[in-house]
Amino acid sequence: MAQNVEMAYGIIVLMRTIVSIDIGGTQLRAAAYTQDQREAIAHKRVKTKASEPDTFGRLVKLIEDIWPKAGKVDAIGVSIPGPVDPHSGIIMLTPNIKEWRDFPITAKLTGHFGVPAFLDNDANLAGLAEWKFGAGRGHHDVLYLTVSTGVGGGVIIKDRLLQGYHGLAAELGHTTIQAENGPLCGCGQYGHLESYSSGTGIERFVAEQLRAGRESVLNPEKKNSAHDISEAAKQGDALSIEAYQVAGKYLGIGVANFLHVFDPSIVIFGGGVSQSGPLLFDTFNESLKERVIHPRYLEGLVITRAELGDDSGLLGARALAELKLDS
Amino acid sequence: MAQNVEMAYGIIVLMRTIVSIDIGGTQLRAAAYTQDQREAIAHKRVKTKASEPDTFGRLVKLIEDIWPKAGKVDAIGVSIPGPVDPHSGIIMLTPNIKEWRDFPITAKLTGHFGVPAFLDNDANLAGLAEWKFGAGRGHHDVLYLTVSTGVGGGVIIKDRLLQGYHGLAAELGHTTIQAENGPLCGCGQYGHLESYSSGTGIERFVAEQLRAGRESVLNPEKKNSAHDISEAAKQGDALSIEAYQVAGKYLGIGVANFLHVFDPSIVIFGGGVSQSGPLLFDTFNESLKERVIHPRYLEGLVITRAELGDDSGLLGARALAELKLDS
Repeated sequence: MAQNVEMAYGIIVLMRTIVSIDIGGTQLRAAAYTQDQREAIAHKRVKTKASEPDTFGRLVKLIEDIWPKAGKVDAIGVSIPGPVDPHSGIIMLTPNIKEWRDFPITAKLTGHFGVPAFLDNDANLAGLAEWKFGAGRGHHDVLYLTVSTGVGGGVIIKDRLLQGYHGLAAELGHTTIQAENGPLCGCGQYGHLESYSSGTGIERFVAEQLRAGRESVLNPEKKNSAHDISEAAKQGDALSIEAYQVAGKYLGIGVANFLHVFDPSIVIFGGGVSQSGPLLFDTFNESLKERVIHPRYLEGLVITRAELGDDSGLLGARALAELKLDS
Repeated sequence: MAQNVEMAYGIIVLMRTIVSIDIGGTQLRAAAYTQDQREAIAHKRVKTKASEPDTFGRLVKLIEDIWPKAGKVDAIGVSIPGPVDPHSGIIMLTPNIKEWRDFPITAKLTGHFGVPAFLDNDANLAGLAEWKFGAGRGHHDVLYLTVSTGVGGGVIIKDRLLQGYHGLAAELGHTTIQAENGPLCGCGQYGHLESYSSGTGIERFVAEQLRAGRESVLNPEKKNSAHDISEAAKQGDALSIEAYQVAGKYLGIGVANFLHVFDPSIVIFGGGVSQSGPLLFDTFNESLKERVIHPRYLEGLVITRAELGDDSGLLGARALAELKLDS
């Protein structure tokens, strides 16, 4: 059941309504969508306050604020910036919300609002959003990669989201591409794609080179962010240019692996670091072409940027709820 | 339509019949299966003769020999030991049958026999066979790896075979796990999983060490096969033992990657090298546990050996045809 809309000729159309929630690092967002419209019919955001207790209570209040006055909501979709079990609806942990550890959020939402709720992590849902509403529209086999502080993945295979048995699939940044003597990754392991091709990987490369006495306009005494390095690269700083080129090279090696594994028809890049243009993508393209085992993988393959930006969490949570209701 | 079987109480059951073909390196096999029985109702094999022309003519003859006399065949399934396009039904190339290059086998079979035909490569179909009839029964998310001369993969996700946009997915042996200074792979690239953990990889390791003057019971003047090396390992030869241990270690690193990517509930090993027991799997287990980024991937995960042996091609081609008829 949903909003009933009376069309011309007295035909009643059941209009599905979804409430989407995006739990971000610094804010909570909620929006309500009807099936016929890309834009939300209601939308609100509040800051997350790590120090304040009862985040769930504040989330309920936020949802009530955007809950449609007329008609019925069919489902709630939730995007979480951390590991979840999408099958049981449990958040394993969330950065910035310490009280949500092994937190059964979908059961609690269903208990409160009386409708089914579904969740997944933000990278999977950004991929799903791009497939349904963004750069991947019309594609059935989509590889989405977010390249920012870390590297995350979202994979759609024959129009279905890859989730895995424990709901932990598509951790694409944490695949080993250098088994011996690779750099340290944020997860504590070595030689992962993320350890080379993320913002953190770029910063590590520059810090190591500066420590080794390499010349650069960057100050070796301070922590240079990926953004600082990108700015220096634009000024022609050789070390900074090389840092992005190295990240692009390994990104090409990682994506070649994913082509061999998934053989998608489109690769979509999201995340801040992926906005670096030729600085990153010249060496990416080179190494992708060099490492792919057969040119057929590249035939008709689209490589492009994400379209949805900040709304990808909300739209992905919406797409997930719609998929689950249909399956 | 299919074999009509009259059951008790006069109920007519439509019994589906599939003809399966397995194109092997040294033989062609064909079998006919009815839906109710695991065993073939007819089965025949002939040697492939690389020197003789008209392999397709001999295949047609073979199929006619096992074609059920009564009732109707619903579909033909084909397993090929090389790259194919399963969407268009074209064999890109087949080892030992040189005339089958860009060969539209399913169109030709349908033209001759008047029923739909479906094909895929032998590793994908061995995985599908294990999921439907073998060690993977009851699992929905299956990772199958064949470890023999090379390393091949077959992946089932939510009860569907992963094929990819061009039909080239699950080339799991050709994923880079050592981007810099990795050994040469059979495909011409470097540092792939196959270059470490296949029979060929084990042979290469031993040959390199012998050339470097390493002591061993193996003769440095001859080409030692993976089987020779396995025999020497059983006699306690330190180099041969190490060769398998190294292969097992990198196999663990590769499988950790595939857990992070697919998050399956079962990993099934086929192929001759995977029969090596603790010689290979002690270091495999060690490195898998060390490289997995979260212990949850291993919760309830089954790691086991393939059950179907030589019949996996025929049974996989049968399972493919059944899946396609149902979809």
